[in-house]
Amino acid sequence: MSAAAGSAPAPEPARTPGWARSLALLPLTPGWGALCARDPDLDLATAAAVLEEGARFAAGRIAPLNAPSDRIGCTLEGGRVRTPPGFADVYAEMGRDGWLGIDLPANLGGQGLPLVLHAAASVGFDGAAMAFMMASGSSRAAAHMLVQVAPDLAAEWVPRLAAGDWAATICISEPDAGSDVGRIRTRAERGPDGCWRVTGTKCWISFGDHDMAGRIGHCLLARTGPGIGTRGLSLFLVADQLDDGRRNRISVTRLEEKMGLHGSPTCVMAFDSAEAILLGEEGRGLPQLFAMIERMRLQTACQGLGIAETALDIARAYAETRLQGGDPAAPPLPILRHVDVRRQLLAIAAPTEALRALILELATMDDPALAGFLLPLAKNFGAETAFAAASGAMQVLGGAGYTREWPVEQLLRDSRVIAIYEGTTGMQAQDFLLRRLLRDRGAALAAFRARALPEIARADPAARSTAETVIARFIALSERLLADDAGAERAADGYLRAGWHAVCAWMACRLVSAEDADLNAAGRFLLHVLPARMAEAENLCTLPDWI
Amino acid sequence: MSAAAGSAPAPEPARTPGWARSLALLPLTPGWGALCARDPDLDLATAAAVLEEGARFAAGRIAPLNAPSDRIGCTLEGGRVRTPPGFADVYAEMGRDGWLGIDLPANLGGQGLPLVLHAAASVGFDGAAMAFMMASGSSRAAAHMLVQVAPDLAAEWVPRLAAGDWAATICISEPDAGSDVGRIRTRAERGPDGCWRVTGTKCWISFGDHDMAGRIGHCLLARTGPGIGTRGLSLFLVADQLDDGRRNRISVTRLEEKMGLHGSPTCVMAFDSAEAILLGEEGRGLPQLFAMIERMRLQTACQGLGIAETALDIARAYAETRLQGGDPAAPPLPILRHVDVRRQLLAIAAPTEALRALILELATMDDPALAGFLLPLAKNFGAETAFAAASGAMQVLGGAGYTREWPVEQLLRDSRVIAIYEGTTGMQAQDFLLRRLLRDRGAALAAFRARALPEIARADPAARSTAETVIARFIALSERLLADDAGAERAADGYLRAGWHAVCAWMACRLVSAEDADLNAAGRFLLHVLPARMAEAENLCTLPDWI
Repeated sequence: MSAAAGSAPAPEPARTPGWARSLALLPLTPGWGALCARDPDLDLATAAAVLEEGARFAAGRIAPLNAPSDRIGCTLEGGRVRTPPGFADVYAEMGRDGWLGIDLPANLGGQGLPLVLHAAASVGFDGAAMAFMMASGSSRAAAHMLVQVAPDLAAEWVPRLAAGDWAATICISEPDAGSDVGRIRTRAERGPDGCWRVTGTKCWISFGDHDMAGRIGHCLLARTGPGIGTRGLSLFLVADQLDDGRRNRISVTRLEEKMGLHGSPTCVMAFDSAEAILLGEEGRGLPQLFAMIERMRLQTACQGLGIAETALDIARAYAETRLQGGDPAAPPLPILRHVDVRRQLLAIAAPTEALRALILELATMDDPALAGFLLPLAKNFGAETAFAAASGAMQVLGGAGYTREWPVEQLLRDSRVIAIYEGTTGMQAQDFLLRRLLRDRGAALAAFRARALPEIARADPAARSTAETVIARFIALSERLLADDAGAERAADGYLRAGWHAVCAWMACRLVSAEDADLNAAGRFLLHVLPARMAEAENLCTLPDWI
Repeated sequence: MSAAAGSAPAPEPARTPGWARSLALLPLTPGWGALCARDPDLDLATAAAVLEEGARFAAGRIAPLNAPSDRIGCTLEGGRVRTPPGFADVYAEMGRDGWLGIDLPANLGGQGLPLVLHAAASVGFDGAAMAFMMASGSSRAAAHMLVQVAPDLAAEWVPRLAAGDWAATICISEPDAGSDVGRIRTRAERGPDGCWRVTGTKCWISFGDHDMAGRIGHCLLARTGPGIGTRGLSLFLVADQLDDGRRNRISVTRLEEKMGLHGSPTCVMAFDSAEAILLGEEGRGLPQLFAMIERMRLQTACQGLGIAETALDIARAYAETRLQGGDPAAPPLPILRHVDVRRQLLAIAAPTEALRALILELATMDDPALAGFLLPLAKNFGAETAFAAASGAMQVLGGAGYTREWPVEQLLRDSRVIAIYEGTTGMQAQDFLLRRLLRDRGAALAAFRARALPEIARADPAARSTAETVIARFIALSERLLADDAGAERAADGYLRAGWHAVCAWMACRLVSAEDADLNAAGRFLLHVLPARMAEAENLCTLPDWI
């Protein structure tokens, strides 16, 4: 290694914390202006207050749970799951202080704030202790689903979910039906008493049981009709404790031992004629669940950003203080002075900040079709960005990063699951290409163009030129697939990557306009690397037919 | 997901095991022919016997150590390191059966076989239990170093190292001198009795102590002269037990807790006036150590291939048996029938098989300058290929892969260290560009051209055309850097990647010529993706100067 030129290096500029980088991007996010225009109580000062206070809570209360929960994990004792020390207390505090219901309706115990403030605040929470936050993710998604699908039950459940008194899960996967929900076997039958009873095994249930709330409601897909595939699936609420106080016939039969996320119990659950309440319409389980699934996909993007942001901050701080290299006759230099370390940090920052801009865009978006188009990108590249950031941070730290004395190895282990749960990369790619582009016949793509191109046209000329080229190539690729979808299965992964690069080009124009030097640098780095990355994605869209 | 076309899928062809894929490549490796021409006892039948027997030993004796060693790890008890159950027994068996000395001289207790058979066999050993094999890596490298530098000591030590009775370590890093060996502070002083004594702290010492051998010799760099930087460093052998049976003044002060590789104790070691023997010339420690370092770099490439091969085999076997997707009215299909899963497996196989071909090339190479040029590539992309293969295999397995019921999560945790130890990616990139290209003034590059291009010219026309284009672009990039090295620091990482793509293009021509369908497919996939990858590497070589 050799040092950057100059004998008296200028001090590094202070780095703004993650929440402030989000705040710097809000005014550049068009949907934010629209929200503020509709709500006179909403402005940047409100956002700053929420995010700064959230960051304080994340650092002071949530982050200390993370490393111990990784070491201690969860245990199954007498049929019940015991969570790591502190989880129950901090969850109760989150409920009391309003963090569990930021965007839930005010008349149901929430704060009534917009989704984007939940998203931005939760990035900090997820970056502090992703495993702990898994409990709140499904509870909040369930609360939103109940508001939409079952208003009566919502009146009972949502205030308690927002307060952290009760919790909820989402139960879809089964041992032989993972990505393949059409093969769900769990059955619900209505008895002569009019009550539905559910029997079957569900797996990969996060916080399927725990000791952080008095009651847990399972939002569960089960087969009620004779149909095959996804027809005949209905949605149920199956509470672990019935209204009369009896325990329902639900048991945790196993906790998975995982590479990471040890603080989040992943349960195999047996439902044995468990009493259940039908939610919404019979046979409409899957479409009713979609809103919940989409909400959890956006949450996985926030998890990804949280992990990436934490990894970046650790790597940057390490690089500022770790001394190595330079002239052996002189004192060693902070490794941040080595250009390759700066490159490594930028390679982490660039997708991280693009992801941040995309999350803010999605969380303020008023166009469901476009949001649906962008969501597989946010979900998958939230996952990939987090894992790459954790691995990149480990590389900056070197041997230290591989040890458990530093938190990056946990970030790496924890984040690896994001590309697997809530729909694998393969599922996101299929969804993006087959459903969001082809089945939609390009309508969402047109909405993407209509929104991205005018913004890019206002960017500075250098950024504009690169971004326009990258996006034009994505559009050409899309049009080719719309014209001839014969090789679509084969092209899906490449097309997903092309979509991400196109979105990065759009978001890079926003980053270079922000009043934050780190965001600017991330945008400039992205614009440098994107054309070559787009070429790689195009190449992956033309895989030979012998594969 | 949807299925590949056709209602009655053809059965998958049987997959050859890793050792047989190596065997299939040997006749295509020019250096192998040269070796056989020189040694009438050497032929493919010998190679097949060694590799098949090695694979049997790996599967039967080494692999069973892996998962338990990950869970149990090593402990420090009464100042001594205790290794996991079975390590000492299997290490003794390896010595007895000749696996520790495959390529050590026959007159010093080795098998006297060529390096390439050690390399190919050790891939299987490393893929079975990388952590366990760490002990043998430094012992073997030390044995070779002693043969070169200190023949008298070699006569005493090498037969015992080959037999597994004694072991050795390599001690370079210190808390403030990791990649930066010029800042080594450990001092050696010669006393009035003529004996050298070493004082200082060494860290990141793999198997710095253990219970698998009766005596451990530490090959240690210490400062003997007043010079700064790497001048004034000398190489010593510091045995933990002196010739008269007394314990030397060496202690293990800590075992690192790591993300993986738990079976390999990573020690912080204190030398407190420990008695030492000077090896070779005073002040020539670093150059004398280079042969040992280069040997360990090739070994890291074998580790990488071992992990990648194991991950690939697990993913492939899983894809053949896991049933998911397809028409919900029909039985589910093996996921191998889904084109995206086949793509994922090929994306793992392609760099894995290129790495295999490169290792065989390097291990039969008679041109030290060219070997030195290719070694940073083998080391770094051995590391990256292993980690990507483990992560890719996890993606194929989905949630199952994230659990400890399957071995891929351990492969992922274990393999992540390879890009960090024995010189990080950044160090390999510096070495490759600054030392192997620029300082060498392009001589090794010319040797690369002279060797690769004639072989490519004999490949089938489609492969030839792509490979020639990719290599021409690498050569053009190299010549640009030779003509103007002003931005070399900034270009190093991109140049390292460009070099790997060029080598993959060369090796892909070999893979498509092999008599093995999996090798052919890996080569064809590589040739499809390499041009776009080269574009990305070129882009990284022109990073803007504001970074």
